[in-house]
Amino acid sequence: MTNQKQRTAVVGASGYTGADLIRLALRHPNIDIRALTANSHAGKPIAQVFPHLANHNLPTLIKNEEVDWDNIDVAFCGLPHATSQQVIRDLPDHIRVIDISADFRLRDPELYEQTYGSAHAAPQLQQQAVYGLTEHYRAEIESTRLVACPGCYPTAALTLLLPVVKQGLIDATDLIIDAKSGLTGAGRALKQNTLFAEAGEGMCSYAVGTHRHAPEIEQELSLAADQPLVVNFTPHLIPMSRGELVTCYARLAEGVSVSDCKDTLQKFYLNEPFVNLSPDGVTPHTQHVRGSNQVSLNVFEDRIPGRVILIAALDNLVKGSSGQAVQNFNVMFGLPETTGLEQLALFP
Amino acid sequence: MTNQKQRTAVVGASGYTGADLIRLALRHPNIDIRALTANSHAGKPIAQVFPHLANHNLPTLIKNEEVDWDNIDVAFCGLPHATSQQVIRDLPDHIRVIDISADFRLRDPELYEQTYGSAHAAPQLQQQAVYGLTEHYRAEIESTRLVACPGCYPTAALTLLLPVVKQGLIDATDLIIDAKSGLTGAGRALKQNTLFAEAGEGMCSYAVGTHRHAPEIEQELSLAADQPLVVNFTPHLIPMSRGELVTCYARLAEGVSVSDCKDTLQKFYLNEPFVNLSPDGVTPHTQHVRGSNQVSLNVFEDRIPGRVILIAALDNLVKGSSGQAVQNFNVMFGLPETTGLEQLALFP
Amino acid sequence: MTNQKQRTAVVGASGYTGADLIRLALRHPNIDIRALTANSHAGKPIAQVFPHLANHNLPTLIKNEEVDWDNIDVAFCGLPHATSQQVIRDLPDHIRVIDISADFRLRDPELYEQTYGSAHAAPQLQQQAVYGLTEHYRAEIESTRLVACPGCYPTAALTLLLPVVKQGLIDATDLIIDAKSGLTGAGRALKQNTLFAEAGEGMCSYAVGTHRHAPEIEQELSLAADQPLVVNFTPHLIPMSRGELVTCYARLAEGVSVSDCKDTLQKFYLNEPFVNLSPDGVTPHTQHVRGSNQVSLNVFEDRIPGRVILIAALDNLVKGSSGQAVQNFNVMFGLPETTGLEQLALFP
Amino acid sequence: MTNQKQRTAVVGASGYTGADLIRLALRHPNIDIRALTANSHAGKPIAQVFPHLANHNLPTLIKNEEVDWDNIDVAFCGLPHATSQQVIRDLPDHIRVIDISADFRLRDPELYEQTYGSAHAAPQLQQQAVYGLTEHYRAEIESTRLVACPGCYPTAALTLLLPVVKQGLIDATDLIIDAKSGLTGAGRALKQNTLFAEAGEGMCSYAVGTHRHAPEIEQELSLAADQPLVVNFTPHLIPMSRGELVTCYARLAEGVSVSDCKDTLQKFYLNEPFVNLSPDGVTPHTQHVRGSNQVSLNVFEDRIPGRVILIAALDNLVKGSSGQAVQNFNVMFGLPETTGLEQLALFP
Repeated sequence: MTNQKQRTAVVGASGYTGADLIRLALRHPNIDIRALTANSHAGKPIAQVFPHLANHNLPTLIKNEEVDWDNIDVAFCGLPHATSQQVIRDLPDHIRVIDISADFRLRDPELYEQTYGSAHAAPQLQQQAVYGLTEHYRAEIESTRLVACPGCYPTAALTLLLPVVKQGLIDATDLIIDAKSGLTGAGRALKQNTLFAEAGEGMCSYAVGTHRHAPEIEQELSLAADQPLVVNFTPHLIPMSRGELVTCYARLAEGVSVSDCKDTLQKFYLNEPFVNLSPDGVTPHTQHVRGSNQVSLNVFEDRIPGRVILIAALDNLVKGSSGQAVQNFNVMFGLPETTGLEQLALFP
Repeated sequence: MTNQKQRTAVVGASGYTGADLIRLALRHPNIDIRALTANSHAGKPIAQVFPHLANHNLPTLIKNEEVDWDNIDVAFCGLPHATSQQVIRDLPDHIRVIDISADFRLRDPELYEQTYGSAHAAPQLQQQAVYGLTEHYRAEIESTRLVACPGCYPTAALTLLLPVVKQGLIDATDLIIDAKSGLTGAGRALKQNTLFAEAGEGMCSYAVGTHRHAPEIEQELSLAADQPLVVNFTPHLIPMSRGELVTCYARLAEGVSVSDCKDTLQKFYLNEPFVNLSPDGVTPHTQHVRGSNQVSLNVFEDRIPGRVILIAALDNLVKGSSGQAVQNFNVMFGLPETTGLEQLALFP
Repeated sequence: MTNQKQRTAVVGASGYTGADLIRLALRHPNIDIRALTANSHAGKPIAQVFPHLANHNLPTLIKNEEVDWDNIDVAFCGLPHATSQQVIRDLPDHIRVIDISADFRLRDPELYEQTYGSAHAAPQLQQQAVYGLTEHYRAEIESTRLVACPGCYPTAALTLLLPVVKQGLIDATDLIIDAKSGLTGAGRALKQNTLFAEAGEGMCSYAVGTHRHAPEIEQELSLAADQPLVVNFTPHLIPMSRGELVTCYARLAEGVSVSDCKDTLQKFYLNEPFVNLSPDGVTPHTQHVRGSNQVSLNVFEDRIPGRVILIAALDNLVKGSSGQAVQNFNVMFGLPETTGLEQLALFP
Repeated sequence: MTNQKQRTAVVGASGYTGADLIRLALRHPNIDIRALTANSHAGKPIAQVFPHLANHNLPTLIKNEEVDWDNIDVAFCGLPHATSQQVIRDLPDHIRVIDISADFRLRDPELYEQTYGSAHAAPQLQQQAVYGLTEHYRAEIESTRLVACPGCYPTAALTLLLPVVKQGLIDATDLIIDAKSGLTGAGRALKQNTLFAEAGEGMCSYAVGTHRHAPEIEQELSLAADQPLVVNFTPHLIPMSRGELVTCYARLAEGVSVSDCKDTLQKFYLNEPFVNLSPDGVTPHTQHVRGSNQVSLNVFEDRIPGRVILIAALDNLVKGSSGQAVQNFNVMFGLPETTGLEQLALFP
């Protein structure tokens, strides 16, 4: 099994997520890239869109509808939301799908519609999709046909918070999640606020109270806490390309200490290859995970008694997107989970 | 009065704070720079330390003890803490002092010792010093001999929070202050974590729970709330040179709305030339205040009912340091408060 | 005269050049901004386009054709090329014009057409326009109605080379001009290669051999050398916002030394407020001129005998664009040339 | 043979070069890291010096003299120059050495002394060392005991120029090499000009005419041209961490065209896995090689007839240092040359 190559399509290959997926896939012994799609670039070699991917014998970009699905086993989808669900809905049944878009992350059709502004085009699939936070849904991912990979912010926030919320160590009704992301998180689309001259040497918060990753975080934390939750989620745009930092502020449950939180995280992730607690007192730094599938966590005393600070750092394009997609691929196909994801962080 | 030039010494002129003070002072009609000190660079022209300050007929750098104080009216002190108090203690009485160091910010000698690790060398002066948050201590600044300019983080946090805490609009016992700063905030001293290769393209929190600006923020908020307060203050290092952003998370007092907070800030700063609320929905951006003495504020609904998000952006070297020092100079010498501080932000 | 305010229109105010011009104009005692145009943003307050320009009582943005020219004395034009010439052609005669676009820089209609791809719409005006490299065309600028401000690269290259070429100190037929610019030089238009994620942490050359500033440099150097010249001009995109560095490689004329070049530059710019030679051995650094109207020059020995290296640094949006435009305004209206341009560099 | 692991020491492991070497070595099937030295950090786990290298069961840092050389087969040396030669001189004969320092790059003892300011401590070894520009010295590297890996700038410049100089396509007596490097090229030592606040958002040339990589470039070009050469080499510091760009300006030999240069490079590197010509008209971009062992080359017409522009981009820490060291290891031990170096560029 582990020697077999899966014939793979990357649907929506012209964004940063697509590029990073191809980067990882090319070094993965069980992925054989058979099709690359990008409707607006159909007919071009990938090297015209991503010069660093030249010289790898990759297939020419085609339109989504041009893929020969009979000869494909698995599809990674990096399409914009709304488009993704339509394309995936129409795929033949034998195709296993790893969706990197936002389309199948929310389980509740109403919440989806409210968050994304239109009804879901594939509500049945939506019910079947498994939320691809690997460390927390491994068993379900193994056997599913459709994985919905979490957003970058939810991956960081949930990896950090789920274990302590499940154990009831913190008051989940009063969670503050201050998040900071580099510019690749905003994608490759042309927007004024992502120009170098606008984003460089400056920072600001954005989508305060309204970011679409908030309902996703709330959905999973609510499940963990077994009660409907609303959380503060405040993202910031930081002048760097890759990297995401989440600083969470929480009230400890009665009788719980900061060490209890730390111990719980330590235990929960003890055998996980991609999640690590930083040494005591060391704050997670995005440079130390850049380009890798690692998440760094740590927990700190607050000055306010009874409060705790939890911090996570990851690379938004790897563990926050394409790396976790590959990790889910490994789980789905019974491979060692680190296959193709062994590269270390690129520091500095 | 407003035409008179004050004979001015800049004590500790070789740091970023010194450089920015000189930049502002050279364009100020009432400041006549008569002495520049920097013990480790004594004897050098300032242009050797700061090439951009060449061609301005500035005095040669001398040692602190070489200043001819008889011919000086006012001193800006940008020395490291501990040194600053010793130098200021020994100044002749006629010298009015604007201290940019941390030495006279804390009113309580015990808190000072606990925070800075040694007893204060000039405890009497410490009692007389006025906290130089101009918009909040204007009257006291006017008549004092010694102003202790606030730290950059406290300037941002207190400008944002003091009016709403004074009015009791938020629960001051449960304040989260997530702060983000560019690298100039760390000074010009050689440290590994401030090298370009270490700080660029990365971010992390630092001094979690232990930063020295926390007691300073607590001191002023406690006075405003009329009760001893402890706050969360969590600073982060961001890959940019100038700029600071403070995102505060607070619980609204019973019956108080987000608009109440906004109205209170709007009213409090209505006639202030350097503090502005951003338009509805617009998040303060550090690029829009870079190089200027402005602070941008705004207030946002939280997803969690009963909570509010308050945000401030400023340039840590200007309003957060040298600009506010000049603003205090203007108040002390009866000048229009914007004198020498009219320059706009350098965008982009 | 020097107390009089000129009623001023900024035509094409929504680009970086427009923003920087407004920044300077607002602090200029003789400029009264009466109209701001931006066809695609007509009807908006400028603060919607440039938040840092809020709170300055600036006129609302209007269309080019909506300006009430009867009540305007002078226009700064920051329109895209081709549009600029049409708008300027139709202005009433009493308006003095300072054009920041490329439209009137080339004197030869054929060269213009060849370089910009279409015939000039106002060839007569083109003949009358004065090239606004202030230090070299001061007398002509004083009396002209239309100044064509040089491009940023030509300003740097010509300031550096014109004096030595005029004196015949270097072989002008064999000039290499390696130029490096920050991203604001590419403007505010949405282009993939100016996104933060594409331009950050990377560099490349562009428009090799074909950049439109090359003919402009050649035009002026040819005049100086009194022979038609072709030069190497190779621009590079550097991950920073503001700043331009030009490194020129030249062969010394027979019997000429590096010091001769340096002395010539020193003498030529001795009384110029905006052009300075760096101290011996110190390389011009863009940080030392950022936000100011200064140019730093220096000259170095090459390892190859008989060769010389000449270097210039400036801020592409100030001396390379809006600052020089204001400098030309000062010359045109008989004001001290530094009026409104006294601000120092923002370092760091 | 290709399955055998070489017991490896990394001598001088605490710099950026050491870190990148360990990053590559940990993924290399034939490298078994047995010792890591760093005199000033002896006794610490590597994770204290490089947190991203935690969790890899690496040996604790020790002093150079503490290595048990009997159980080591090969040493990578990343020590500062002068120290490197002393340590290597005293190694047992069975150790094969890949030196990343500057100590064995220059063949002529006098040139070494003149360039580095003191006599060489191991002149005999100096004579035996092979210059490790892999594509040009492969055969010699295979059989040598000591490889002197080239500097980052020489790797870029020589890869670009050697084939065309050997063929006599350009006038090697009149070469201009304008080079631009990110900050990691300056190392991890604490220097004021490499602080984020000093280097960010700015650029300058440095060591004009005097950089130590110039003699190294000249040595190799002289050999290729079979005549003693002096070249212009002008490095610039660019605000980014990794990446190096070399833009060369040359006069074509009589009758030679730009395509001749291109064809020669194309042919020379046709079967080389790490050297590629960019497509026609595409300028090499450092982002497209970051983190990889690739060099991108291209050749362009100059505006000046008879001249040519040649450009190379690489990652200074990989192909410019540790990656080429690993490439040489592969050659020395008869391994496929891409072993351990297959990772793609990290874009963006």
